[in-house]
Amino acid sequence: MVKTNSANQIQENDLVLVWFNEKEVSYLTQVSQGKQLSIHCGKPLKVEEWIGLNYGSSVKCDHAFGYLLRPTTDDLMMKAARESGIIYPKDAATLIMRTGIGSGAKVLEIGTGSGSLTLALASAVRPDGHVHTFDRRSDLPKNAEKNLSRANLLEYVTFHQRSAGEPFAWEQFFDVVILDIPTPWEEVEPVKAALKGGGHVVSLNPCYNQVERMAEALRAHGFIRVDCLEILERPILAREGKTRPVQRMVSHTEFLLFGTKITPPG
Amino acid sequence: MVKTNSANQIQENDLVLVWFNEKEVSYLTQVSQGKQLSIHCGKPLKVEEWIGLNYGSSVKCDHAFGYLLRPTTDDLMMKAARESGIIYPKDAATLIMRTGIGSGAKVLEIGTGSGSLTLALASAVRPDGHVHTFDRRSDLPKNAEKNLSRANLLEYVTFHQRSAGEPFAWEQFFDVVILDIPTPWEEVEPVKAALKGGGHVVSLNPCYNQVERMAEALRAHGFIRVDCLEILERPILAREGKTRPVQRMVSHTEFLLFGTKITPPG
Amino acid sequence: MVKTNSANQIQENDLVLVWFNEKEVSYLTQVSQGKQLSIHCGKPLKVEEWIGLNYGSSVKCDHAFGYLLRPTTDDLMMKAARESGIIYPKDAATLIMRTGIGSGAKVLEIGTGSGSLTLALASAVRPDGHVHTFDRRSDLPKNAEKNLSRANLLEYVTFHQRSAGEPFAWEQFFDVVILDIPTPWEEVEPVKAALKGGGHVVSLNPCYNQVERMAEALRAHGFIRVDCLEILERPILAREGKTRPVQRMVSHTEFLLFGTKITPPG
Amino acid sequence: MVKTNSANQIQENDLVLVWFNEKEVSYLTQVSQGKQLSIHCGKPLKVEEWIGLNYGSSVKCDHAFGYLLRPTTDDLMMKAARESGIIYPKDAATLIMRTGIGSGAKVLEIGTGSGSLTLALASAVRPDGHVHTFDRRSDLPKNAEKNLSRANLLEYVTFHQRSAGEPFAWEQFFDVVILDIPTPWEEVEPVKAALKGGGHVVSLNPCYNQVERMAEALRAHGFIRVDCLEILERPILAREGKTRPVQRMVSHTEFLLFGTKITPPG
Repeated sequence: MVKTNSANQIQENDLVLVWFNEKEVSYLTQVSQGKQLSIHCGKPLKVEEWIGLNYGSSVKCDHAFGYLLRPTTDDLMMKAARESGIIYPKDAATLIMRTGIGSGAKVLEIGTGSGSLTLALASAVRPDGHVHTFDRRSDLPKNAEKNLSRANLLEYVTFHQRSAGEPFAWEQFFDVVILDIPTPWEEVEPVKAALKGGGHVVSLNPCYNQVERMAEALRAHGFIRVDCLEILERPILAREGKTRPVQRMVSHTEFLLFGTKITPPG
Repeated sequence: MVKTNSANQIQENDLVLVWFNEKEVSYLTQVSQGKQLSIHCGKPLKVEEWIGLNYGSSVKCDHAFGYLLRPTTDDLMMKAARESGIIYPKDAATLIMRTGIGSGAKVLEIGTGSGSLTLALASAVRPDGHVHTFDRRSDLPKNAEKNLSRANLLEYVTFHQRSAGEPFAWEQFFDVVILDIPTPWEEVEPVKAALKGGGHVVSLNPCYNQVERMAEALRAHGFIRVDCLEILERPILAREGKTRPVQRMVSHTEFLLFGTKITPPG
Repeated sequence: MVKTNSANQIQENDLVLVWFNEKEVSYLTQVSQGKQLSIHCGKPLKVEEWIGLNYGSSVKCDHAFGYLLRPTTDDLMMKAARESGIIYPKDAATLIMRTGIGSGAKVLEIGTGSGSLTLALASAVRPDGHVHTFDRRSDLPKNAEKNLSRANLLEYVTFHQRSAGEPFAWEQFFDVVILDIPTPWEEVEPVKAALKGGGHVVSLNPCYNQVERMAEALRAHGFIRVDCLEILERPILAREGKTRPVQRMVSHTEFLLFGTKITPPG
Repeated sequence: MVKTNSANQIQENDLVLVWFNEKEVSYLTQVSQGKQLSIHCGKPLKVEEWIGLNYGSSVKCDHAFGYLLRPTTDDLMMKAARESGIIYPKDAATLIMRTGIGSGAKVLEIGTGSGSLTLALASAVRPDGHVHTFDRRSDLPKNAEKNLSRANLLEYVTFHQRSAGEPFAWEQFFDVVILDIPTPWEEVEPVKAALKGGGHVVSLNPCYNQVERMAEALRAHGFIRVDCLEILERPILAREGKTRPVQRMVSHTEFLLFGTKITPPG
């Protein structure tokens, strides 16, 4: 007896990625009544007509077909509306794996920015965890909130505004703290207080100078497993008889610095 | 009012990583009554004495201290008992991110091996998803099962034995299918049948010849977004006044090939 | 007693690189009477006025200064007039080092193209060696010849036209043969005949498939030290307090495949 | 009429690389009367018997054959007798290419060390240039001298001992100055004085802190084209049906920092 899955239909409020394979062009849009989506070919698409279609179905525009896909976490991050730099999926993936973030995790993010990393964290802590995200600016989180909302991940995130160095209202509460700010060493004290014993801190910074200074600050505060790395993602063209790496690539985004809080012997 | 978290204590059956910072040596062991853990320094540790201690606490051996940590997903994978090659965390992290695997996902793995990837998948689909993993060999899954069991992830995984090319007992059921076998192109038909519309396939192979052939097989079967990449993880020594990349690194593990199943227009 | 060097003056017919540091813009031009050089800022420069100036001197244009420099081999290659793809300096540098090309070497190049590699080879064999370069097309070498001529390297190079697979008029004559053509395996027989015992062959190809096939062809013809590699050049921004790798880089140009001809025992 | 080359015979005093292909083992030895070479298989080889053989010929030992090869510049560097760290061929190749070192060049090296870089420089300036190399230590150059001597390159190099910061006995004399010392910024003044207008400086250092400080020192002294990069050499296994990058590689050796001396406008 073959088991099939009928629950693969597009619903109202779903976030859908319309993918045009010929040009590798795509659009991310939330499904709602009356909505029209302007695209690169032909007339705008009537989004409400997708309700009830199976994911993977096609829509026609002029001579091309677009395919209606569930956005992956990678798609959510790369398509986030941006008002500042974003964290790349390759870096988010590694930090989630290295700190063991999963359902149930309590995560603190310092530096909400456009919310691209917040999207990945919210998705990873579902359904039993939560992300508290803090930014100095009051305007950025509005954009981040919109990105989370259309991805239907808002319930897993609380947004906060906070000045640098301010203590957090939690002690020994968080499994992981992630810093995406230029001067992370200023936050080591409150971060350490907020972390559980055995909890992890991650700092994301583009410059050597920053991770060096933060690594020393973490060591000075007794963190162990202070490790730094960078992730390079190299695209490959896999085609019959002529497979090779792509000619240009993103060479650098952020260094990832890790540390683990312990209870010092005593 | 400050909120604290009391539930950070080591319990019986927990899987604990004992980390010695000086030598970067660590041990992964499941907590049970009467167990003794042999280590590199001093007398064996009495594991039952850890019950009730907070994570992050230290245990003494000779002149060194070991710290009792919750293993991360990365730790689980790197410390898996091996009877065959393993998939590396960097690759598992990227494929989870790129295919949107999260709580609730139904994942099919072909090639159980030592179960290192199965550990990462099981952890990512918690608590509402499930991993069905298949291997041709009947002996390997026993080792994989042991790895999953001590990580308390067994309930999220079902192990199957199966010959190459055999159809699966599911149609349009899985969100993601992952192939970790030498000749993935032989499995495209049954994989396609088992995938939901819009579902993703990932093939992990060390040689370019394999991903080239698989990429063409996926295109021939109508898959879209057929993309290939490799992930390089470069360790950095971050130390005051003398920060630099590490001198030797893992240069290559697997190419990652992705594809998405669609319902062809018509 | 301090020794100084007076012979650092620009002469007629010298090839000069005018470098504008602010914008990292540069121009490569041969010095001659009456010549004018159009640039991005201000009026054209009168090239003849540079004769007798020391290298390193500046010329003014509007608000910027340009510096008169001797082009390096890297500059010659990157500034070569192009009618086809070029070989990059990083790859040329490694192949010269790995095959021991130096003054006196006899080098055979198959695939003249725009002559960017020919420039590097001619410069390396000076003053006692020679490069014989072959192309199937009769039009490309004219451009290559111009590039060599203005670099004052023409005397070290002889240009030839030749069809694929044709035998060469030399036996056991060349120290190194370099192939920059899409199907190098078709040339193994004549290349082997033209090489000295202990001589080296290098094939430059962008695709895995090509170097794999050529590697097997070389092994089948008894070549030893059949090795393949790729060179990645990663630019770094070195600036006070904010040093980091550049964000985008050239990820791939050519694979370099090496082999050494031996006299089989017997 | 076919031209052949009879001058490919091993002579007394030649430096020969004996290469065993099965195990990729090799030996570098200078040919002399009565010499015996101990190897990994069978009885010692009688080196004098090679005189008059063609390069590329084989010698037998037990069941294996060794091939008599001319060492390339890469071989010379990797086989240099070491009493300190060496500079790698990939880095030497790039700096020679980027600074235009060729026959006739006057090169100043600060930090002789084991002389591995000196070998590459001496080979590149042949026959009309010269390398002056300086070290603080009086013992190291003896080893370097031996390496240069057996490669028959001694006539292109002069060895000097010198304390840090001491002025050089040349003004505006050198085309290129290369620094392979831990604190290159202490040498900018004398280096600048010794360089020709338009001449190049290169500093080789493993830590980003060093190249950052040196970059700022060069800018402060009016150098232009202050550029930094690193070279990664990735080995590829090219074999029928199973071609892939090698699993481990050298990830980091030195950052290369470049600058060009100009005559400031005024």
